[in-house]
Amino acid sequence: MTIELAADRYGKSAIRLVKIVRDGARHAVRDLIVDIALEGRFSRAYTDDDNTGVVATDTMKNTVYALAHEHLTSSIERFALALAHHHIQPEQVASARVTIGEHSWSRMPTANGPADDAFLRSGELTRTCRVTAILDRLAVAAGIEDLIVMKTARSAFSGFPRDQWTTLPETDDRIMATKMTVDWVYSPSTAADDTFDYDASFEGIKATLLDSFTTHHSASVQASIWIMAKAVLEQHPAVDEVHMQLPNLHHWLVDLSPFGQTNDREIFVATTQPHGLIEATVRRGD
Amino acid sequence: MTIELAADRYGKSAIRLVKIVRDGARHAVRDLIVDIALEGRFSRAYTDDDNTGVVATDTMKNTVYALAHEHLTSSIERFALALAHHHIQPEQVASARVTIGEHSWSRMPTANGPADDAFLRSGELTRTCRVTAILDRLAVAAGIEDLIVMKTARSAFSGFPRDQWTTLPETDDRIMATKMTVDWVYSPSTAADDTFDYDASFEGIKATLLDSFTTHHSASVQASIWIMAKAVLEQHPAVDEVHMQLPNLHHWLVDLSPFGQTNDREIFVATTQPHGLIEATVRRGD
Amino acid sequence: MTIELAADRYGKSAIRLVKIVRDGARHAVRDLIVDIALEGRFSRAYTDDDNTGVVATDTMKNTVYALAHEHLTSSIERFALALAHHHIQPEQVASARVTIGEHSWSRMPTANGPADDAFLRSGELTRTCRVTAILDRLAVAAGIEDLIVMKTARSAFSGFPRDQWTTLPETDDRIMATKMTVDWVYSPSTAADDTFDYDASFEGIKATLLDSFTTHHSASVQASIWIMAKAVLEQHPAVDEVHMQLPNLHHWLVDLSPFGQTNDREIFVATTQPHGLIEATVRRGD
Amino acid sequence: MTIELAADRYGKSAIRLVKIVRDGARHAVRDLIVDIALEGRFSRAYTDDDNTGVVATDTMKNTVYALAHEHLTSSIERFALALAHHHIQPEQVASARVTIGEHSWSRMPTANGPADDAFLRSGELTRTCRVTAILDRLAVAAGIEDLIVMKTARSAFSGFPRDQWTTLPETDDRIMATKMTVDWVYSPSTAADDTFDYDASFEGIKATLLDSFTTHHSASVQASIWIMAKAVLEQHPAVDEVHMQLPNLHHWLVDLSPFGQTNDREIFVATTQPHGLIEATVRRGD
Repeated sequence: MTIELAADRYGKSAIRLVKIVRDGARHAVRDLIVDIALEGRFSRAYTDDDNTGVVATDTMKNTVYALAHEHLTSSIERFALALAHHHIQPEQVASARVTIGEHSWSRMPTANGPADDAFLRSGELTRTCRVTAILDRLAVAAGIEDLIVMKTARSAFSGFPRDQWTTLPETDDRIMATKMTVDWVYSPSTAADDTFDYDASFEGIKATLLDSFTTHHSASVQASIWIMAKAVLEQHPAVDEVHMQLPNLHHWLVDLSPFGQTNDREIFVATTQPHGLIEATVRRGD
Repeated sequence: MTIELAADRYGKSAIRLVKIVRDGARHAVRDLIVDIALEGRFSRAYTDDDNTGVVATDTMKNTVYALAHEHLTSSIERFALALAHHHIQPEQVASARVTIGEHSWSRMPTANGPADDAFLRSGELTRTCRVTAILDRLAVAAGIEDLIVMKTARSAFSGFPRDQWTTLPETDDRIMATKMTVDWVYSPSTAADDTFDYDASFEGIKATLLDSFTTHHSASVQASIWIMAKAVLEQHPAVDEVHMQLPNLHHWLVDLSPFGQTNDREIFVATTQPHGLIEATVRRGD
Repeated sequence: MTIELAADRYGKSAIRLVKIVRDGARHAVRDLIVDIALEGRFSRAYTDDDNTGVVATDTMKNTVYALAHEHLTSSIERFALALAHHHIQPEQVASARVTIGEHSWSRMPTANGPADDAFLRSGELTRTCRVTAILDRLAVAAGIEDLIVMKTARSAFSGFPRDQWTTLPETDDRIMATKMTVDWVYSPSTAADDTFDYDASFEGIKATLLDSFTTHHSASVQASIWIMAKAVLEQHPAVDEVHMQLPNLHHWLVDLSPFGQTNDREIFVATTQPHGLIEATVRRGD
Repeated sequence: MTIELAADRYGKSAIRLVKIVRDGARHAVRDLIVDIALEGRFSRAYTDDDNTGVVATDTMKNTVYALAHEHLTSSIERFALALAHHHIQPEQVASARVTIGEHSWSRMPTANGPADDAFLRSGELTRTCRVTAILDRLAVAAGIEDLIVMKTARSAFSGFPRDQWTTLPETDDRIMATKMTVDWVYSPSTAADDTFDYDASFEGIKATLLDSFTTHHSASVQASIWIMAKAVLEQHPAVDEVHMQLPNLHHWLVDLSPFGQTNDREIFVATTQPHGLIEATVRRGD
């Protein structure tokens, strides 16, 4: 019997970068958190104390700051592509994965209009992307995290199996609240297209998600995922695959009968523990 | 020598309440987290195992849900006033303090305009209030938490004392980033005014804070607090006192010289540990 | 009408310091998080852009590291005293408050006994202290945070008032679980005693708290606070005052009757929202 | 072009369960957090609003509480096996995955010895397990989370490649601090063995990990992973595979030269952002 290294990966995580873009008195803020991870021929670092191929994670961090001036000039996807391209260069590296989250800062609203040099951090969502360079191929995914949304109508859950362990009543009108995590994978031809506009695509996909979330009738969180993911694929040909992970953040109707009150879908207690967790991948078939 | 109870307070914290307000097909969402704390003649519960005066914290929780239908119909301040009034009633209670945080849910933006029954949780800030009923007096404070803002110009820090322990360079142009916690105390006459519009006041004070944050030249976080708090007091006669607590979330310029690059206030590393912490109370004098 | 600065305080928070004490091959780890806050004649920094008295918070941070070699050689209280003494020196400073939290690292248990140079972070509690220098007086407080404890017997809650809003049943046997935050204030003579052993005192008070938590019958969280705080004052003459803050982390019995099971105080759901919150200060009287 | 459901999974997460085991006056506390996730023939719930096969996640939660009396009597692995066995029964379910985390509560130490009915939550680590039932096969993995450890000697990092982006100095003596996440997979024969003692195995593997962490010379985090994982496989024949994920929580030597001090590996600043992140899977070969 032998013991072997079956898989390994390493890198630097949580590299925080803020770039101030100055166009005269009018500034812009980029606020990123970057992770880099490499795979490749690193087994001798594990088994033989041989670090000759091990790019220091501190060096990875340095490149994030050093490449930001030149390469962080448009979308996070373009910056991630530059970082992935950089980190795939050493011959021992087989794949370089760059994950970026961006917090949006909006211009401060004032009596004189949006400010040039003061900003408000928008807390509604985090935009994300993940670029993976494997040898000479590049894969680009993008997504949204921490988007908290609620439907107060057109959400039901009924027709599920009942057995001795089932106590949940059927309902044709419940609150559906969730904190959406969505990732979508761009097609290879899109990833290879140096002119593709990732910012416009992000805004379009976000609008599709919010629109379809709002307008559909939900028979279950599962059905909602299908409807939203399908809408993204139908309306955004650059996307090949959508992954969604939706916790079901239950809102329970409070029993007010001890106080002589009825409670017609009005007063709820919001909970996080436990929560449902529904995830699915929807993609283009042949 | 004796041992005595010098002070005590108890209550229920983190009561989560969601109310769906239904105006036909057009809904609205109220999302609150409520704390209630009482002081009074409770010493026998401590020293004599006598619970005859101890309103159960579970009962406090019940009242939050039971009073929401009738009393949570406008601002959180009005709901807190109703709850404080309720909890000050028992003769053993000397003061009742109700603290509420409200998360804002905005109508979902869609291609057909804002939705009637789908919502997006706004993550930019939490609105807060604190109502304290002491015997027959009511004190009302309100505030903002978790508002993350940044100035990329007109912020300096220089002229501070230098000794053998000082290494910070002077600067006439630094990033000022902070997560604002602000509380303001309404005047007694305002608190006694059943017609005062707390929602309009909140929006007005928030606008004053953002406006003054944006437009002033900051010589220090201390100076910024003074300028913002003074603006609130000058523009909002209903307010008697402003308390601000501002962490200084440092953004350090990255040294790119090892890579042959200059870095003219462009590339920063954002940090949270350690951070400066500046707090002050500004009020009307005689 | 004038506007005035009513109160102000500033400093540096969350300064993380690790010191490795090397006694030959046998090491020890100190792991601190330090906050420093000053009050004094700083009003001109607020109102006149005058920083001439404003010790930079970056300088405060430097002193924590620079004084650690010489002064962090025994208890955190002694280090905090040195830091407070240092920061009270400038004439514009009226008070300097130093707060320290210490995470304990225990020697790694191995087959050959406790290790000399490998450590396990103990997660059971954080030891804290707060030293305040006001002019020439020094006040020393110490405490415990994040100590999570549970009683599975000898805890009751009954005899509380019942009205139309009360649904909680009385119980003579409930789980009492809490996350203790305790602070105690040492007497002035103790704070002035350069030979007082704060480490021994901490261990003794912790033992008193755990012992009294275990052995008493609890009629309420209020009663438990009184019994524990009283035990500290009775057994530790160096302490003048004890403050305790205990959340009541409810464990609700699960209704298993739908599944044909009884549940005799066996199966519970642990919750954090909402929770009771009980706090009191107990001190020596005249 | 068609759109298809490529993968899906759903269940209930963060089900909190506390069980009090009463042996006369001597109690024990079990404190679990349980996740259940199913895969199978659920596509019609997504695409056709057909919930006839969708076991409600609320029902899953009920079973956790309902099965605890009978099946949570020894290790979390045995309870997870019972839950997985239960959830794989419906014909539409192809796999049931049960993940459990257990917080340990130790008997309260008192002057009279360990208490019968008072407990202290041990914060040093969370014990975990994951049981997956796929048709008639059962896979059992177990692990440790949140174990924070430090080596203050015998840790180095040198010999790594240097290029224009490298600034990290080589070192033959650095602090290595990490928060270990380890999972190990038991062999199929072990998983099929109804008499295997998972508690003893957990204690043995934990001892091996701590022992090997302490005694080895580390040339890198990678090398440390290999050494520890190999030790587990060599000493624990029931284990087929070990996965480790170790953040490198950097401790940077503070530059005290501005203050006229040398700093010989004594005073450090502990950081979390950014951190290295090293992960590997080590297994038995043929």
